[in-house]
This record gives sequence, structure tokens and C-alpha cells, in this order.
Amino acid sequence: MSPKTDRLSIAALGGVHEIGKNMYIVQYNEDIIVIDCGSKFPDESLPGIDVIIPDIAYLLENQKQVKGLIVTHGHEDHIGAIPYVIKQLNMPVYATRLTLGLIRAKLKEHGLLGSTKLHEIDSNTTLALGAMSVRFFSTNHSIPDCLGVVFHTPQGVVVHTGDFKFDLTPVNAQYADIHKMAEIGQNGVLALLSESTNAERPGFTPSERSVGEHILEAFQKADKKIFLATFASNVHRVQQVIDAAEKTDRKLVLLGRSMVNVVDIASSLGYLRLPEGMLVEPSDCNRYSPNELVILCTGSQGEPMAALARLASGNHRQIRVDPGDTVILAASPIPGNERNVGQIVNNLFERRAKVVYGSGNVTGMHVSGHASQEELKLMLALMKPKYFIPIHGEYRMLHQHRLLAEAVGVESDNIFIVNNGDVVDITGSAARQDRKIPSGNTLVDGLGIGDVGQIVLRDRKVLSEDGIVILVVSIAKSDAKIVSGPDVISRGFVYVRESEGLMEEVQRIAVSTITKLQEANSNQWGEYKQALRDALGKFLFTHTKRRPMIIPIIIQV
Amino acid sequence: MSPKTDRLSIAALGGVHEIGKNMYIVQYNEDIIVIDCGSKFPDESLPGIDVIIPDIAYLLENQKQVKGLIVTHGHEDHIGAIPYVIKQLNMPVYATRLTLGLIRAKLKEHGLLGSTKLHEIDSNTTLALGAMSVRFFSTNHSIPDCLGVVFHTPQGVVVHTGDFKFDLTPVNAQYADIHKMAEIGQNGVLALLSESTNAERPGFTPSERSVGEHILEAFQKADKKIFLATFASNVHRVQQVIDAAEKTDRKLVLLGRSMVNVVDIASSLGYLRLPEGMLVEPSDCNRYSPNELVILCTGSQGEPMAALARLASGNHRQIRVDPGDTVILAASPIPGNERNVGQIVNNLFERRAKVVYGSGNVTGMHVSGHASQEELKLMLALMKPKYFIPIHGEYRMLHQHRLLAEAVGVESDNIFIVNNGDVVDITGSAARQDRKIPSGNTLVDGLGIGDVGQIVLRDRKVLSEDGIVILVVSIAKSDAKIVSGPDVISRGFVYVRESEGLMEEVQRIAVSTITKLQEANSNQWGEYKQALRDALGKFLFTHTKRRPMIIPIIIQV
Repeated sequence: MSPKTDRLSIAALGGVHEIGKNMYIVQYNEDIIVIDCGSKFPDESLPGIDVIIPDIAYLLENQKQVKGLIVTHGHEDHIGAIPYVIKQLNMPVYATRLTLGLIRAKLKEHGLLGSTKLHEIDSNTTLALGAMSVRFFSTNHSIPDCLGVVFHTPQGVVVHTGDFKFDLTPVNAQYADIHKMAEIGQNGVLALLSESTNAERPGFTPSERSVGEHILEAFQKADKKIFLATFASNVHRVQQVIDAAEKTDRKLVLLGRSMVNVVDIASSLGYLRLPEGMLVEPSDCNRYSPNELVILCTGSQGEPMAALARLASGNHRQIRVDPGDTVILAASPIPGNERNVGQIVNNLFERRAKVVYGSGNVTGMHVSGHASQEELKLMLALMKPKYFIPIHGEYRMLHQHRLLAEAVGVESDNIFIVNNGDVVDITGSAARQDRKIPSGNTLVDGLGIGDVGQIVLRDRKVLSEDGIVILVVSIAKSDAKIVSGPDVISRGFVYVRESEGLMEEVQRIAVSTITKLQEANSNQWGEYKQALRDALGKFLFTHTKRRPMIIPIIIQV
Repeated sequence: MSPKTDRLSIAALGGVHEIGKNMYIVQYNEDIIVIDCGSKFPDESLPGIDVIIPDIAYLLENQKQVKGLIVTHGHEDHIGAIPYVIKQLNMPVYATRLTLGLIRAKLKEHGLLGSTKLHEIDSNTTLALGAMSVRFFSTNHSIPDCLGVVFHTPQGVVVHTGDFKFDLTPVNAQYADIHKMAEIGQNGVLALLSESTNAERPGFTPSERSVGEHILEAFQKADKKIFLATFASNVHRVQQVIDAAEKTDRKLVLLGRSMVNVVDIASSLGYLRLPEGMLVEPSDCNRYSPNELVILCTGSQGEPMAALARLASGNHRQIRVDPGDTVILAASPIPGNERNVGQIVNNLFERRAKVVYGSGNVTGMHVSGHASQEELKLMLALMKPKYFIPIHGEYRMLHQHRLLAEAVGVESDNIFIVNNGDVVDITGSAARQDRKIPSGNTLVDGLGIGDVGQIVLRDRKVLSEDGIVILVVSIAKSDAKIVSGPDVISRGFVYVRESEGLMEEVQRIAVSTITKLQEANSNQWGEYKQALRDALGKFLFTHTKRRPMIIPIIIQV
């Protein structure tokens, strides 16, 4: 191996300058290791898109060098793209038991379970992947069984934190391994990649255990049914709900597909302690009096199709929210979801329920799973990295994380804020950020992966705002005289019965446009179409201040 | 006047079970007085819609009884619908000087200034409108010159608070007239309508003056250009920016149409004290060094076309955010706007600006203009109403306001939570809520008021999610044989070059569908169209999991 090619490279294929679709790579010469394979949900600028995944062109171009995928934990923004990516590139997957359980469920749904190589690891595993050996350390987060990853390369050690917080009183005694982190730092860390989700938040994130105390208190006060909505994947919180139900002699009902799935997987793998006989089917609820039931459900972010939204609007088939019932929203609304959550609270109050809602800081019913500023500094202090790359966050979070790193003594020139596709190359004693690899958003719409591009999205946007006007006319090939039509069809523009005069005028303008071109002896249909688009577009904008898509269809007969 | 018809009625035509489009009516027998005439902005469920205004069918049906429109203050959710409503129903408008100034600008834009009867009032005015006399009291809010309204009716006194807070150290000494409120309460209030925006918020809203202190402090620390974004209509805050600029020897630049308009109107009417020579045109900025400038701009809610968004993305024609400049977001993001605001902060950090952002509670750069729980209780305590109708808010806010009213001693049965269109009738000693008048959303799209209905919106939604597939075929009238086509045109569905095989298959299915009907001797074109829609819809869903709108066009030749 010549010194020229002795190069360690670090890059993000997703997860920076955004929240979601995390995918990072650590490459030592010809060996590539992928960390995480997440998805993210589209905002309103991507109508009709189901999910967004990382563009993996770089991995496909270098397939033979890809040694495997390491998954730090089982959240969607870290595992959501696995089935789509595995279809294109079947690499071995390494993850802990719970994470693998969640991945297996996804692969099964896509019919990929048999063909994917899954390897269970834990915090004591050592993997040899090409020229790198990979070790792990336990962290705390809002899902159990999370790992930080340590890459031992001939150039030095690279640490990727995964998502983490420092919860010093964790539920289920799942402690973060601070001593191991200290040892890793003591032995020397060349580069640290650390998550930045809460880098804007001062202080220290409260322990998940504090939520359990508030849940128990609320359960003790309630005298009718209790509904509690939270993230299904927050197994620690689900455990605390189970514990509080047990202490207050209530049975547990699960509503929502992901809640049923996660509880099933987590309890069968031993991550949840579910007392015998505690679980009751929704259809059996009527055998119990209201003060004997806790209904644990999905939809805490206001998702319109999830259990909580259906309960709030009275559309759930099996269970009803009655006056005096208690409904606890054990989650803070993620930016963008406030309106939907607010609407659910409106509906619950209309059903005369008691509702515990609002920011987790106020209600005590939610804490973040991510490290706040003091914890991020603690991680930086433990690892003492030479180079620092803040990951997992929008630019403002990466920027704030940079300031924290500077505050604890990382040299300014050694901090790299990267965009997806930017590569940090470390060779010998120097690190540089001056080249890019392909990266981007791959859009999944129905069965299509990547077939919806800018043109389709732009058309969807025009169609959604002002609709479409289709003009159909048949013209004789011989003399360009109108044989039939023009007929006008519109959708999403104006309701036609209310605007017959407008449509008649459109026909009149179409005829006069066509006649003018006939008189000029044009038989270029492209010219006719352009002239019709121009004339009708201008007329409709003047009369309606709307710009529908205009499709002239000329049939030559 | 027989006792049978001696009826006082109160209703909302907009503003309850929602935030926005406020419009209330107080009717005594045959006399109707309208309070406020606001608009609201559509969410993503109403694609292409520009603005939503109240449905005024009830007022149109009873035109002769409408005595006038009283406007409590100049915010969009109280004045935004005036031009659209005045076009349909030209009633006299009563408002204070600043409010009238803002209304005049709107009417002028719509060419309605000459034809509208505008009457200036102040807190000492008494109006005689039909059988009612109307008086007013001063309140504090985030715009000057706000009024509460007192309706003296033969049945008793009705009070409408308008929007308010109790700011005991107001900017420009615009005190709320607590003594007058006490007197009104002492003389007896039959019914109180009080705003509920912050009914979920404990405590007492801080004084606007506290923001001024934080602004001055930030100005004193800044050593380059200062950008401050806030609501243009918050004249008190604009005054405090001017004051801080004066104290730190900076000139003021205004960016954004509404900022220029409001400052122009407010200073010409004497609501703003603007020192001579302080204002600088954007084009003259380069004559000053960076530490001599404050740029006051619109866009604090992340509006993509407003000044701040353009500055953040480097697209402003005249002024640039340079490294080291200070940018202050003097506003808390309204739910739904967090993502856009976050993106602006990302962009500003990328330009290496210092950014003051986040909740006003934390930055001190914003306080609400609405009363928190203790102030709402204070209003209830001052007015001591027999009947209480919480207004101006979503259901959860109305509900919390009800709890506050109960806490200060209003009888539970005398509190009415109404929806738009619900009427509270007070006759003699009893109040009842058991009838409805027409109400609803009127959608404004371009020049159309109310011409976009459910069908158009549903079509826009389908088009935006999965696009449109148009199939054109000419069929002989005689034997239903295909003469030309079928041709397929798609927009917003898939990019056609990437899916030629799919489109060929669509053609093949269309031919076989048509052939089958020919063989069955059908010449019902409706049958052909339905069969094509069904066959193509099924095929496309199976192969893409998308449901585009399918428009078969059959030309008979």
C-alpha cells in the first residue's frame, strides 16, 4: 500500500443539512463501510411522494468495495431505507438484536428476508471488515440497544456516536458505557462524528425515568379510561406505561399497527416485561369497566390515519373516547406537526375528555432522546478527537455543534461541516474537504424508486394550484380546417357549471387562433399548439388570475 | 315591540373553532351590527387558494337590517376580508384612525375607496345604530388603537373585547382603560365575548416594553449591519427599533412592501415617531458603513417570498447579509411555520451571520399581543358578565377559556361555546343556543370569490399526488373502429421517457378495451369511457401503486 493511496475518507450520503435519511460511510483505501440506512418523510414540496431515501450511486459504482452496513439503532431515519437499498445492493447488515428484529419485519414486508445477510452484534463484538476492525459501545437513546461505532484503521480511530443522550438513571438499567467511551478517548480518537439533533438546546436532557413518574401520577388520578399516545419504538416508555398500568390495576390495550408490531418484537426478544394476562384485545374492552383500562396507541404526532386521530374524531371501530376519559399525549409535536396535533386536541375536548398535551417540558410526559448541549460537550470531552464532523442535523444544528466543539477545545480548522456528498480525506497528518461523491434524494412513489423527478414534481405543483385545461380539436390534414371541436375539459380549475361563459369564450379564442394560423397556411401542429397555449393562458390569467396547465390536443383527420 | 320578538342574538360568522377570519354579529330584533371582517390563510388542504373569508349569506339575506361594520383593530384576521365583503354588501365601516388608515390602503388596492362609507371613531365615541347605542374602551394589543366594544341594548349590555392584553407599561403610553372597564362591569354586563388566543397559556403576558430592552442591548453589542424581522403591523415594536437605532447612531432601512406601507401610514397618522433623516433608501445603503445601519424587514414567519427569506438565500437585489452581521428574528414562529423559519436560520448561518432566533420566551425578542390566563381572568373579573361566550380561538382555547370563566365564578350553564353559525338568543331572563344561521368558508382564488368548491379542490388534490393520464382516441361513428390513436399524454405521473414500456402497455390495454366493447356492439361513448377509466386505473395501480386521474377522450369521426 503506497502512502499515496493510504487514505481514510469520511462522508455523508444522507443526514446532514437535514433531519432524516441518515447514511454515512467510512472508507479506508478500497474498503467501504456504510453506517445506517434511513429514510425521511417528504414535506409539501414533494406532493405524492411516499418516502425519501439516500441516492446510493456511489455505493453502486463501488459495489465490490462495500464490506457491509452497520446499523446503530432501529429508528426509521436509520433503518427506513434498508429494503429499498438492499434491492439495489445486497450487502451484509450488522445490528443489535432489537434493531435486527425491526429490520427483519421490514424485509419480510418487502419479501427480502430470505435473501439478506443479517448478522447480530452487541457492544462487545469486534468485526473485521477489510482492513478495518470495528468495535462498539453502548449508548442511551429513545429506543433500546443503541450503539456507537469505533473504526480502527491504520490511519487512526474514527468514532460515530449514533444517536445518543446520557441518561444516568435509565429505564431497564440500559446504561451508556461511559467508561468504555473514556478508554476510547484516552487511547486517541482521530475523528469523531457526533449527532447534532439537540445542539441548539442548552442544558442536559432529562432522564426517561422522569416521564415514568408523571405517567404513574396521571394514572393514579384518572377514574375512567386512560389513553396514552407515544412513539411505538420508545420501548422504555412503553415499559413505564406497562409498569404504571400494573401498579394501578389496569389492563393494557394496544392500538395501531406499529404499536402492536413493536410490542410484539420487543417483548418476544426480552426488551419488554409484560405481565401475564395484562394484554387485552380491543374487541374485549367492553368486558372491563373504564377504570380498568389503559389504551396505548400510535398517532402522537397527529398523523391523520393513526389510532389517536381516529379516536379523537370518533372514527375508531372498536373503542370510543367518552366524557371524563383521560388522554395523554406523551410526545412533543415535531415542527410541522403542530396543526395536526392541535386539531386532535380540539376534537378530544369536544368529546369532553381530559387532555394532557403541550410541550414535554411543561407536561413532564415527554423527554427527548437526544443529547443537549452539556451532553454533547461531555461526549466531545470524553473522545478528545483531533478532527470533528458534526452530523445528523440541519445546518443550524451542525453550526451550534461546531461552537460547542470549539468551546471544549477542538481546533477550529479541524472541524468540518459537511454537506451530503462532501468527503473529508485524512492522509498522514492532514485532513482536507475538497472533493465530492454523488449524493442526493431518491424519491419513492408507490412502487417507483427514483422515477419521479423534477419535471413530474413541477407539473404536480402547477396542477395542484390551478388545475388543468384540456382543449381537444380535430383538424383536417388536407386544409387544416376544423372538423370537430374545439372541446374544453377542465379539472381542478373552476367548476364548469359555474363558468360556462368562460369555457365558451375559451372555445371562441381557440377557433380564432386556429383560423389565423390556417390563413397563414401553417401546417406545423407544434405552432398551433404553442399559439393555443399562449392565447388561452393569457386569456385565462386575465379573467381569473390563475395559471392552469393548458394541454392542446390536435387530432389530424 | 312584543316580548315575543324582543330578542338579542349573538353569533359568530367566523373566528371560533379556528384562528382567523373573525366576524361576529350582535343583533337586536331587526338591527344587525357586524364586528370585524377578517381573512385567514389556507393550509395545504386547500391548494391554490389565496385567502379564506367568511361566508356572509346571512348578512346578504338581511341586508336592510345591517346597520354597519365595527372594526376593533387593523390586523388581517380582523380587516382582511373587508374588500371582498364590501363588494357584496356595502355597509358603513367604523374604526379608529390607524385601523381606518390600514383599511383605506386595502380598499384603494381594490378600487373601492370612493364607494365605501368610512367613519372614524375613538374610545370616546358613542354610535346610535338602530335600537342599539355603541360605546368603546381602549385596550392593549400588538398594534395601536385597539378597541373593545360595548353594545347597549334594551335587553342589557353586550361587551366584545376585541384582541387584548393588559400591558401595564405600554410603549407610547397607550394604556388600556381599566377604569372604564371596571365601570362597565360595575353597571352590569349581560354578555361578554372575550378573545381566547392564549387561553392555554398560564400567567401574564410580558410587556412589549421588555422587547425594547432586549433590542437595545443587541444593537449595542452588534458591530456590523443589523437586520431585524418582525410583523410590520407591530407599530410599538417598530417604534422600539427606531428608538434603539437612534440611541446607537444607526440609520433605518425598510425592506418589504407591508413594512414600507405600515411605517408610511403609521408615521403619517402620528403613531410612529421617526426622527428626521433616519430613513435611508435600500439603494443608498452603500453610502454607510455596516455599523451605521439597521435593516427592518418583513418575513419573520419564514414566508418564502418576503424580504428575510430573500436576504437569507442571497437573492435580495439591493442588500446582502455579510459574515458577522447580526440578524434578529423578533417573532415566535406560528405553528405551521417552524420549518420555513428553520430553513432561513440555516441559510443565515451559512452566510456566517450571528442569528438571534427561537422562542420569544428565550430570546426576549418577542412577546405575544394576547392575554394569558391571568389577564383573561382579570377581564372576566372586571366585566362580571352573566353570560360568557369565549371567541377567537380553536376549540381547545375556547374550552380552556371556559374553565377560566368557571374559576372566576361565571355559572357553568351560562357559558356558551359556539361554532360559526350557532346563535345565542337572549330573551328576557333566559339564554339559549339552539338555532343556526348560514356560515362557512368562502374561498378566494385569483379573481374568483367562492367559485372554487369541493369538486375542484378534490381534483387538485388527486392531480397533485399522482398526476393525470389523458388517453385520446378517434373512433369511427359508423362502426366504432379505431381511426387514430390511442395516444397517451401524462403530466405529473411519471416522466414519460423513463416509462415508455408502461405507456405502450396503456395503449395496448386501451385498444383491447375498446375492441371488446365494439364486439359487444356498444355505441354508448359513456360506456367506453368508463371501461377505459376502469381498465387503465387498475393496470396503473397494479404496476405503480399510484392512482392518477384518468381522462379518456373519444373523438367521433
